[in-house]
Amino acid sequence: MGERANARIAVFPGSFDPLTNGHIDIIQRGAKLFDRIIVAVLTNASKTPLFTVDERLAIIRENFQQTPNVEADGFDGLVVDYARRKGATVLVRGLRGISDFEYELQMAMMNRHLDAAIETVFMMPAEQYTYVSSRLIKEVMTLGGSITGLVPPGVEKRLVDKKKGTSRP
Amino acid sequence: MGERANARIAVFPGSFDPLTNGHIDIIQRGAKLFDRIIVAVLTNASKTPLFTVDERLAIIRENFQQTPNVEADGFDGLVVDYARRKGATVLVRGLRGISDFEYELQMAMMNRHLDAAIETVFMMPAEQYTYVSSRLIKEVMTLGGSITGLVPPGVEKRLVDKKKGTSRP
Amino acid sequence: MGERANARIAVFPGSFDPLTNGHIDIIQRGAKLFDRIIVAVLTNASKTPLFTVDERLAIIRENFQQTPNVEADGFDGLVVDYARRKGATVLVRGLRGISDFEYELQMAMMNRHLDAAIETVFMMPAEQYTYVSSRLIKEVMTLGGSITGLVPPGVEKRLVDKKKGTSRP
Amino acid sequence: MGERANARIAVFPGSFDPLTNGHIDIIQRGAKLFDRIIVAVLTNASKTPLFTVDERLAIIRENFQQTPNVEADGFDGLVVDYARRKGATVLVRGLRGISDFEYELQMAMMNRHLDAAIETVFMMPAEQYTYVSSRLIKEVMTLGGSITGLVPPGVEKRLVDKKKGTSRP
Amino acid sequence: MGERANARIAVFPGSFDPLTNGHIDIIQRGAKLFDRIIVAVLTNASKTPLFTVDERLAIIRENFQQTPNVEADGFDGLVVDYARRKGATVLVRGLRGISDFEYELQMAMMNRHLDAAIETVFMMPAEQYTYVSSRLIKEVMTLGGSITGLVPPGVEKRLVDKKKGTSRP
Amino acid sequence: MGERANARIAVFPGSFDPLTNGHIDIIQRGAKLFDRIIVAVLTNASKTPLFTVDERLAIIRENFQQTPNVEADGFDGLVVDYARRKGATVLVRGLRGISDFEYELQMAMMNRHLDAAIETVFMMPAEQYTYVSSRLIKEVMTLGGSITGLVPPGVEKRLVDKKKGTSRP
Repeated sequence: MGERANARIAVFPGSFDPLTNGHIDIIQRGAKLFDRIIVAVLTNASKTPLFTVDERLAIIRENFQQTPNVEADGFDGLVVDYARRKGATVLVRGLRGISDFEYELQMAMMNRHLDAAIETVFMMPAEQYTYVSSRLIKEVMTLGGSITGLVPPGVEKRLVDKKKGTSRP
Repeated sequence: MGERANARIAVFPGSFDPLTNGHIDIIQRGAKLFDRIIVAVLTNASKTPLFTVDERLAIIRENFQQTPNVEADGFDGLVVDYARRKGATVLVRGLRGISDFEYELQMAMMNRHLDAAIETVFMMPAEQYTYVSSRLIKEVMTLGGSITGLVPPGVEKRLVDKKKGTSRP
Repeated sequence: MGERANARIAVFPGSFDPLTNGHIDIIQRGAKLFDRIIVAVLTNASKTPLFTVDERLAIIRENFQQTPNVEADGFDGLVVDYARRKGATVLVRGLRGISDFEYELQMAMMNRHLDAAIETVFMMPAEQYTYVSSRLIKEVMTLGGSITGLVPPGVEKRLVDKKKGTSRP
Repeated sequence: MGERANARIAVFPGSFDPLTNGHIDIIQRGAKLFDRIIVAVLTNASKTPLFTVDERLAIIRENFQQTPNVEADGFDGLVVDYARRKGATVLVRGLRGISDFEYELQMAMMNRHLDAAIETVFMMPAEQYTYVSSRLIKEVMTLGGSITGLVPPGVEKRLVDKKKGTSRP
Repeated sequence: MGERANARIAVFPGSFDPLTNGHIDIIQRGAKLFDRIIVAVLTNASKTPLFTVDERLAIIRENFQQTPNVEADGFDGLVVDYARRKGATVLVRGLRGISDFEYELQMAMMNRHLDAAIETVFMMPAEQYTYVSSRLIKEVMTLGGSITGLVPPGVEKRLVDKKKGTSRP
Repeated sequence: MGERANARIAVFPGSFDPLTNGHIDIIQRGAKLFDRIIVAVLTNASKTPLFTVDERLAIIRENFQQTPNVEADGFDGLVVDYARRKGATVLVRGLRGISDFEYELQMAMMNRHLDAAIETVFMMPAEQYTYVSSRLIKEVMTLGGSITGLVPPGVEKRLVDKKKGTSRP
């Protein structure tokens, strides 16, 4: 018994540095709509990442152990090239507000230009995650604010461990 | 051999008065992503429609004769109630610009409040349809402008027939 | 012991047809910032209101019985004229999204032109009320959807009573 | 000595009911950029206009007596058809904010579709006119607010005369 | 006779590098609405500031000598932590346009998440300051443009002094 | 036979690193509206340009050999100072979307403040160039994507040559 032919495979690309509860919300929604969803970690996005790509993949996997059609993978290069290699026909993107929208629409048009066979669909996170972005999470953390409720427990735990590590004499 | 269990059914709701090439573009994209897509014509949207609901359904059907997983149907009431009755779990909406985006996001949040099991996904039409809306089509027609290339031939033909009909002595 | 001199009085103007939980959220926030907040019901906003002005005032009052610095009042004419008559120097407005923002900014500039001594301040409702507007509430109700959680219980109860009343033989 | 060949003629279309200081600002800017600018009053825009088309044309003309390359004219039908008949190759539009922008961009794309030889250019009014629209002017007037500084004196004078006229026994 | 109990204290946080006339406008408006307003200079915002934190504090103070309820202070860390330490319950933010709006709304939601007792209120500068930002002021200055009318005289004078200083042999 | 007196000269400023088909579209539209249009390359915009200023000027010139009223030139400093030196009274800017719009409006207001005699006009590229920006072109190229159809052939050819050059041992 195998995967049905023509399974619809979606890619959810991003840096996920760190994975937020907003990402988790979108991934769960995507997992209901498509046969498989690949959470694709861009490996060369930032010079000074908070987590290594391996840590980010581990965090994604531990959050979706119970959701067998969610996978985590690393990629670089064009996301449409990656999607094609994986047999995916859909890119999933979350939309929080207007500035997301403009940028995402521009990227979606460019990706359609690069490969018209791959379609971008936009999904809306739960409203409590409207303001949650990886960038803002990092800013708050840097300033000593609590991020409980905004990221999964595995992210918080690793951050505590990292701090202990760096403050060791 | 029948439809597989757990077929993913999407509803694309609207007035479709008239169906535009922008709608056709979104429906074709949706038809690739979901097992079935129901183009659901809101039956009580306007007091003075251009086309009757039956005409609108006929126009949709003749444009998707070759796409067996596209259906046309009429509905009234809440779209989430209609979707549930049809076994659909997805609402498809097109996004052209910011004003669409704000309204659509508000509607999607309300629909999620009304039935959390039904997910809204947003898709982007080809850029040449960015400015095409049923309302603007009607305005241009009323002022005597050409709508060739913005609506399917069946809409244009029916409009010519209607004009002949109304100008009869 | 009386009200201190120079008490800061705010006006929160609107139709409140009906009062939503989003309005309540903004009023409560305003009540903490200003000495008195007057919820000012525009008496001539709509030809076919859902509730009479008296019903709307009653609904506001019953929701703020425990908040002595919240008052309800009706007004017509320019909101800046009303504010001046009441000794208010602040207009409070809620901001949910971009389309709110544009309209509200335009109104605030016009109000500043009409009376520079009255300042508009914008506040943000809790994110779960982002999609709640009186207009959308009315639409959902008309289509038979549940508005529980979006309006206070007194609004829901009155609506049930109204329906019974109108369906009486 | 006559008009040079290939004079660039621009059309500034609108309802101008009433002409505002924001319109005057844009017309003056346009008059510097193009050889002639025709302020084109849409004759069938509203069922219940504040001023007749003739009054609106008179108001425009009296405000641009000193600017010989500004003309006023009435039109109906498609603005691109009107522009072509007048030998114009440019439509001038004012941009105040985002909601203007979205609507104007959609109209400009539709007009380009209808006649690719006619170009739309957008200009920005002085910032003190950002909030001035004919619709808001009418609202403020109806509510008894002062519109001094927002419209030219001729508009204010005519409005006072109209009020006297309507309140006559 | 001292400050009344429950004085409402507001914080207006920012980099103020340099203080602009747009900032001054918002601070003056805030000073009318709240008992005290603390202009809080973020001390670690930029690696290469135009003015030191001490210069920025001095500039703010000299502009509000006549407004006793305006104070200047430096802070780092989370603004809600700073506000709580100062007994403030309000954050004041200026809104100029859509891009401000999106960012400010996201920050306000995050700050509410971090401390629900501190409320953000948004105010609108006079329209002539819509385009004035510290970043743009710096750009214009760097390119040799005049910033007279956009910043207070003390900022201009210090900049002239700085230029003399740096060009000294 | 010479240029007529009072020729209207426009400046289209930018980095043009690289020139895109979106830029070409706007320049061609501007060339129809104004007597001369100067494509003005900002010489100090980026530390690590893709093309030198001379290469960018050469690319512009080879694309407009057949359009004699289009010129290319380099500039630094304030664009209004440059325009004044060239006798230009118009700045031309392209508008693709909301984020362009906000930034462009802010710049246009600042430029008007710096020199009220120079007017900014906004034009709209063909819709297929909505998503084309120099920044995104560079990103796609870096990731190995095809930019055919988004930039003129001369840009593509030079990029191929550059790659050969850099990969030489």
